[in-house]
Amino acid sequence: MEYRKIKDEDEVRDAGVEDVGKSFLLSVPDNDLSAEAETKIDSHREKVKWKRKSVVTLALTVLTSSQAILIVWSKRAGKYEYSVTTANFMVETLKCAISLVALGRIWKKDGVNEDNRLTTTLDEVIVYPIPAALYLVKNLLQYYIFAYVDAPGYQILKNFNIISTGVLYRIILKKKLSEIQWAAFVLLAAGCTTAQLNSNSDRVLQTPFQGWVMAIVMALLSGFAGVYTEAIIKKRPSRNINVQNFWLYVFGMCFNAVAILVQDFDAVMNKGFFHGYSFITVLMIFNHALSGIAVSMVMKYADNIVKVYSTSVAMLLTAVVSVFLFGFHLSLAFFLGTVVVSVAIYLHSAGKIQR
Amino acid sequence: MEYRKIKDEDEVRDAGVEDVGKSFLLSVPDNDLSAEAETKIDSHREKVKWKRKSVVTLALTVLTSSQAILIVWSKRAGKYEYSVTTANFMVETLKCAISLVALGRIWKKDGVNEDNRLTTTLDEVIVYPIPAALYLVKNLLQYYIFAYVDAPGYQILKNFNIISTGVLYRIILKKKLSEIQWAAFVLLAAGCTTAQLNSNSDRVLQTPFQGWVMAIVMALLSGFAGVYTEAIIKKRPSRNINVQNFWLYVFGMCFNAVAILVQDFDAVMNKGFFHGYSFITVLMIFNHALSGIAVSMVMKYADNIVKVYSTSVAMLLTAVVSVFLFGFHLSLAFFLGTVVVSVAIYLHSAGKIQR
Repeated sequence: MEYRKIKDEDEVRDAGVEDVGKSFLLSVPDNDLSAEAETKIDSHREKVKWKRKSVVTLALTVLTSSQAILIVWSKRAGKYEYSVTTANFMVETLKCAISLVALGRIWKKDGVNEDNRLTTTLDEVIVYPIPAALYLVKNLLQYYIFAYVDAPGYQILKNFNIISTGVLYRIILKKKLSEIQWAAFVLLAAGCTTAQLNSNSDRVLQTPFQGWVMAIVMALLSGFAGVYTEAIIKKRPSRNINVQNFWLYVFGMCFNAVAILVQDFDAVMNKGFFHGYSFITVLMIFNHALSGIAVSMVMKYADNIVKVYSTSVAMLLTAVVSVFLFGFHLSLAFFLGTVVVSVAIYLHSAGKIQR
Repeated sequence: MEYRKIKDEDEVRDAGVEDVGKSFLLSVPDNDLSAEAETKIDSHREKVKWKRKSVVTLALTVLTSSQAILIVWSKRAGKYEYSVTTANFMVETLKCAISLVALGRIWKKDGVNEDNRLTTTLDEVIVYPIPAALYLVKNLLQYYIFAYVDAPGYQILKNFNIISTGVLYRIILKKKLSEIQWAAFVLLAAGCTTAQLNSNSDRVLQTPFQGWVMAIVMALLSGFAGVYTEAIIKKRPSRNINVQNFWLYVFGMCFNAVAILVQDFDAVMNKGFFHGYSFITVLMIFNHALSGIAVSMVMKYADNIVKVYSTSVAMLLTAVVSVFLFGFHLSLAFFLGTVVVSVAIYLHSAGKIQR
């Protein structure tokens, strides 16, 4: 099984981490110099890993947060006049281009080798379209769910994503969270929902049964796409992330090209591909592209759990920044949600230590 | 120092609990029968303690919850027509009477001894008026805070009590909570507040500075009164709880008699002491009296932390029961608050194990 392989590789990685721990313990009574040197190298490697993980997580948080701010800004500036499908296609194209530029620099420096060559086997590439396909299905469902829920209600139901990501992460990647970490994850979902509460939120409780089912199915699709992406990227740990990204985004381009043909063919033919694009549109495309790359990096160097925490913090950051930028008011519910999310983040790390 | 003494006694109790743990561990390699027998007795004693703790906590939860329901019921039935000060006096008197009846039965069974005799020393009795005096000051402040906050806002600010109780419990009783348990306590406060949110809650954020200060002072007074009561009761672990209650409630009667004279003297003189009493009033007096005794029992056999969790659960229970009794609607905020409080309760016990 594909998943098994991933799991075994994870175990190898985990074993590596454990070894570092063991060698720390051993280094006290052991006077063997080579063992000490190894420990030092291992601990240095751990530090580099931790630093890389922090940088990509921080980048994702800042980019996601500014993404939401750009959306508010563009809405304030007026309605979307450009076609969303062409913008999505441009985002995928830009991500592809950035990955290729990064690869070019690596080839110049290190030369082309097994890990960074662009050519690939069918066995490697065959799984890459799956996340893009899942997102497509989810986006199609999104049009139908609005028959049952309004937009603010949908924002609240989207917090099911947090729970579904946790559950699928456990089932598919077979990685364990401690009980405290599970409690933290439930709190993260409750805290994010609390932070988004407003006077109309209770309407979501009147959502008909079909609406609940669709919300849960969409959360599962979105969670599965995220976890599956992590599985693909982590399956080949030594493979260069830019090559992996390139293939992911190529299929993203294909699916979005189909979406343009199906949804906006006439509009694009009559008004042109870039009709209605403004400075903000271009900014948003760049921001989406960089966020997308940051997500891939988080999948490679951290995991889906980190991604969920990062985007949740971004949601809170967006609200705080909006107070200064747009004069938004923060509610008591937002404050309480922030407290709960903060405690969840603390518990996620405290739960790890005590395992 | 008084507090030091209490702390030392606690350490003795804690050491006892630890010994049970140790003897369990020892019983595996150790074949000494007397040690095994001791372990059995110890474990039996622990079970009895645990059972008593559970029963009083459950009683407090149910009584507090039905108390709130009786208040809603009496409000629906019409305005308070009786004088609140006479009702409070009756509550204290009833508690005194119940304590005396319980003592009478114990004297009949075990005879009068050092631990259950009613007579006492000045050294023992001198601290008993302090909690009653603190509550009196808090109740007086309550009239003034409404100049700054409305009643629903005050309900929300009252959740500061949770935090103040935790902090004072730590400082005065010198008992430690683990980091996870502190996190759970913050969550308990946030969850209770979330559960009480409604469309007008944001007004509390406009509370003027004096209002915040008074809310915090009142929370400290209430927290200090609770923690100090625990200190008094736990200072003499072998003293019969009914004797301790009797003295607490005698001073409660005195303070409430003063309150009648100051506030309602004319009304009582003109209309009579029991003017406006109805069946619900009598029910409420009985309920308050039993809840008060349950609080004392929780202080004796558990602690203030358990009390806070118990009354928080009671608050949630009240809301659920009100749905069936009065056709109340539960909000999404209530649901989210309940999730957070449930996780807090789990973490409080999980945090204990992992210490």
